[in-house]
Amino acid sequence: MKFSPLVDELIESLRCLPGVGPKSAQRMAFQLLERNRKAGQKLANALERSMSEVGHCQACRTFTEQELCPICSSPKRGNAGVICVVETPADVLAIEAGGHFMGRYFVLLGHLSPLDGVGPDELGLELLEQHLSSEDVTELILATNPTVEGDATAHFIADIARRHNVVISRIAHGVPVGGELEYVDSTTLALSFNGRIPL
Amino acid sequence: MKFSPLVDELIESLRCLPGVGPKSAQRMAFQLLERNRKAGQKLANALERSMSEVGHCQACRTFTEQELCPICSSPKRGNAGVICVVETPADVLAIEAGGHFMGRYFVLLGHLSPLDGVGPDELGLELLEQHLSSEDVTELILATNPTVEGDATAHFIADIARRHNVVISRIAHGVPVGGELEYVDSTTLALSFNGRIPL
Ligand SMILES: [Zn+2]
Ligand SMILES: [Zn+2]
Repeated sequence: MKFSPLVDELIESLRCLPGVGPKSAQRMAFQLLERNRKAGQKLANALERSMSEVGHCQACRTFTEQELCPICSSPKRGNAGVICVVETPADVLAIEAGGHFMGRYFVLLGHLSPLDGVGPDELGLELLEQHLSSEDVTELILATNPTVEGDATAHFIADIARRHNVVISRIAHGVPVGGELEYVDSTTLALSFNGRIPL
Repeated sequence: MKFSPLVDELIESLRCLPGVGPKSAQRMAFQLLERNRKAGQKLANALERSMSEVGHCQACRTFTEQELCPICSSPKRGNAGVICVVETPADVLAIEAGGHFMGRYFVLLGHLSPLDGVGPDELGLELLEQHLSSEDVTELILATNPTVEGDATAHFIADIARRHNVVISRIAHGVPVGGELEYVDSTTLALSFNGRIPL
């Protein structure tokens, strides 16, 4: 024990955050205790509620505490017949930041990875196929990461989609190979949408 | 709104942590939601309780939810008549990591800074003087940071301490000038204790 049980527990708990080592956890704990208890309380509250209440959008699988996320429930998406498949909720944010895509999303929450036990079920591909069978859906854009796993996942989904009456494409130009979609700037992302190649 | 109200609130709340920008807040939120909800709950709990229950040790002013911190209440400190004055609770940790100091601490929770309204009252110097009047206290080691403000604070406290029957010293060799005590390695800190200069 370095301080008192509760302070030690706070420092230890902060280490569950990605990129936070013992030294930064300590600095975070002290800064909150010294200068920002209100913000600490607010964070406690947001964490408490998020961890128990946030689930997944029933249409696109992104994080939301509601039945449908704001994008899926918005009547303002001009191109609701186009579904863009991404790996993570962060990818949705990255594409939305560009503001050029007016369709909807489908979030895989991962990519195919048989060794880790991640197969079609884990990626919600049955739900995606339900969307594809709907008459409203006319186009599928595969925006998984340009990595080996992301490419394999895109091809796997393209094979499924071919059974349905939709135009299929993969985003292409602009996204650097081996990179993570989440970190690409919005202009590059826009290019990769415009230059998508039919599969 | 980027996701849903609750997810947005979680991301926004995480930014109260030092060094956490919008991108890392987002990554932290997603990682907790995706992979570590139990740890997120635990953190919420530790934050909630710490922010409301953690106060200051009534003897040394470091953080604790108890009346006395573990150091002040320990019967095992071999040199309880020696008080080491530091600026922050993190400095206590840094010195304890060395394991060579067996006295007690007094934590100023800052340094003299008249422009910011930090004077003797804010640093708890009345409480420190109560300790100095006690017969049990024989020595005072001033381990404030070797900065302009830390030096000024040390001299101010030395002036007070001279009215009492204690040996007064300032830690000296080893700590790089302008540096922060919290980030000094324990060997350097040990040197600075051994080479302390009487004031
Ligand atoms: Zn949705
Ligand atoms: Zn104490």
